[in-house]
Amino acid sequence: MASLSPPTPVIPVGRNEIAEASRRLASWVHRTPVMTSRTLDRRCGGSVFLKCENFQRAGAFKFRGAMNALLQLEEPSRRTGVITHSSGNHAQALSLAGALLGVPVTVVMPRLAPAVKRAATAGYGARIVDCEPTLESREATVAAEAARHGLTLIHPYDDWNVIAGQGTAAFELIEEVGPLDLVVAPVGGGGLLSGTALAVSGDAAGTRVVGAEPENADDARRSLLSGEIQLANDPRTVADGLRTSLGRRPFAVISRHVSQIVTASETEILDATRFVWERLKLVIEPSSAVAVAPLLSRTLAAEGLRVGVILSGGNLDLEAFFREFATRLA
Amino acid sequence: MASLSPPTPVIPVGRNEIAEASRRLASWVHRTPVMTSRTLDRRCGGSVFLKCENFQRAGAFKFRGAMNALLQLEEPSRRTGVITHSSGNHAQALSLAGALLGVPVTVVMPRLAPAVKRAATAGYGARIVDCEPTLESREATVAAEAARHGLTLIHPYDDWNVIAGQGTAAFELIEEVGPLDLVVAPVGGGGLLSGTALAVSGDAAGTRVVGAEPENADDARRSLLSGEIQLANDPRTVADGLRTSLGRRPFAVISRHVSQIVTASETEILDATRFVWERLKLVIEPSSAVAVAPLLSRTLAAEGLRVGVILSGGNLDLEAFFREFATRLA
Repeated sequence: MASLSPPTPVIPVGRNEIAEASRRLASWVHRTPVMTSRTLDRRCGGSVFLKCENFQRAGAFKFRGAMNALLQLEEPSRRTGVITHSSGNHAQALSLAGALLGVPVTVVMPRLAPAVKRAATAGYGARIVDCEPTLESREATVAAEAARHGLTLIHPYDDWNVIAGQGTAAFELIEEVGPLDLVVAPVGGGGLLSGTALAVSGDAAGTRVVGAEPENADDARRSLLSGEIQLANDPRTVADGLRTSLGRRPFAVISRHVSQIVTASETEILDATRFVWERLKLVIEPSSAVAVAPLLSRTLAAEGLRVGVILSGGNLDLEAFFREFATRLA
Repeated sequence: MASLSPPTPVIPVGRNEIAEASRRLASWVHRTPVMTSRTLDRRCGGSVFLKCENFQRAGAFKFRGAMNALLQLEEPSRRTGVITHSSGNHAQALSLAGALLGVPVTVVMPRLAPAVKRAATAGYGARIVDCEPTLESREATVAAEAARHGLTLIHPYDDWNVIAGQGTAAFELIEEVGPLDLVVAPVGGGGLLSGTALAVSGDAAGTRVVGAEPENADDARRSLLSGEIQLANDPRTVADGLRTSLGRRPFAVISRHVSQIVTASETEILDATRFVWERLKLVIEPSSAVAVAPLLSRTLAAEGLRVGVILSGGNLDLEAFFREFATRLA
């Protein structure tokens, strides 16, 4: 019954808001390069334009959303500071954004988060608060810290300013290369995919937006099919940025504006990671390769199309990845 | 005694010839992007501009020299074809250049060259001829094949057209970012370093050119100090593109125009490779990292300077490298 679900949020962000965000961010974000590859084009039959957010500040598109959110914070909240929960790219992105704007940042992180991620976040000057590795502990810790210090929550994806910021990557891409038939973005919590969908919504080219996720974490596909958010239950995937369930705001956008979610097997994700490293010479994290895999495998038809792909980021623990990669190659 | 050495070659290439080569190559080569890194600048105290030849066609600067040489070949030789010896980037570069121009390419390669390199070269349509893994066998095989089929030798580095082509990377870099105080390029056979030196020779900025090589393959440093070509005797280094001894033409240029050769230890080379992969998100081969290492280690003083670095290429056997890298990290 619809009445049992929380009401679908009104969507206050469209192309105009993303164009505005793009202007707001212009002096803060890297205008990342767009790469092409003859080999990739040959493999999928289309013309592919890769927006290289692995070159973004703090190594991922997440800096766009975090910075856009902080730039719109009112003065008293700026001084008191913000809080988030993340052990990944959003933590680093928000910490860097806070450091640049003089906004104190608190990050709630599971006690056992990888040392390399804690160090990167602390390196930008954020305060780290430990929690247990459960959803309950995380939410309780965030709520308690926020209440105690009067902090504003900047959610990693369930936040309209964050979503608008993430949409600026696709906006820049189309500004640079012109109209596209198709844009593919990876989907975890849905901030990037919903921002991307809003960036092209209602454009004259009728650009289709497709989400890509691991087969082992196909909650977005199931959500789109069932019309209700389906949870990702601790999925096992090398694409560690995409283990999250969809946020309510992203889902509202995705269910309206995203035509399809395609999935990639773990082997396809590793193959695509390797392809991008070896052939395109770009260090990307496996979560980014998830959006390339369906083109290489032709799961997603691209013949004769102009296709944009958001390469979401390039942060990974090389040592750990080398070990994992080496064993899976055997 | 000077009379015992072969005479020093006259140098027929200068900035004008490299500017010409740059125009000649414009529609064939990728105008590769120039990257910067706040972290790298902080580490070395200068402003570093990285010319990303890892994004060049066939994955390395070598395509510039090979293409420049083929474009200047007269008609009958074009039809008969060219020959070279290389198991690395020059083989692939020349094969691709030949495929694009319809010039038949023969590559003499040691019987035991890595399968991945043979496949890449053959993939561009070159004919591969085996030799034994000795200098004598290689030269005899090249001479015999060249004589039998009337082929023109395109030497990997001891060729003025090749040298002029390699110089176009530095030429483009300065065209894009303006005058530099210092340019660093890796040195193996010396084609890239001599081309780079000629590209800036006599410029108003008085740009200094520095070569970088592995400590374990420091023949260029010894050659510059002694005034005569010193041989690299099967050196052990992860920077497999830099195991070669200097060619006579490159040495003539380097001894006149290169102010210094700096060296990097194997650990420094691996650290620099990792730094560029992790922080800059660029897949480069260890031979390229050799030019970054002296900046990170401050072996080369860069404080307050505008520094160009030629990131020479990004071709490597990921599996083999992961294995090697993993053991060295332990």
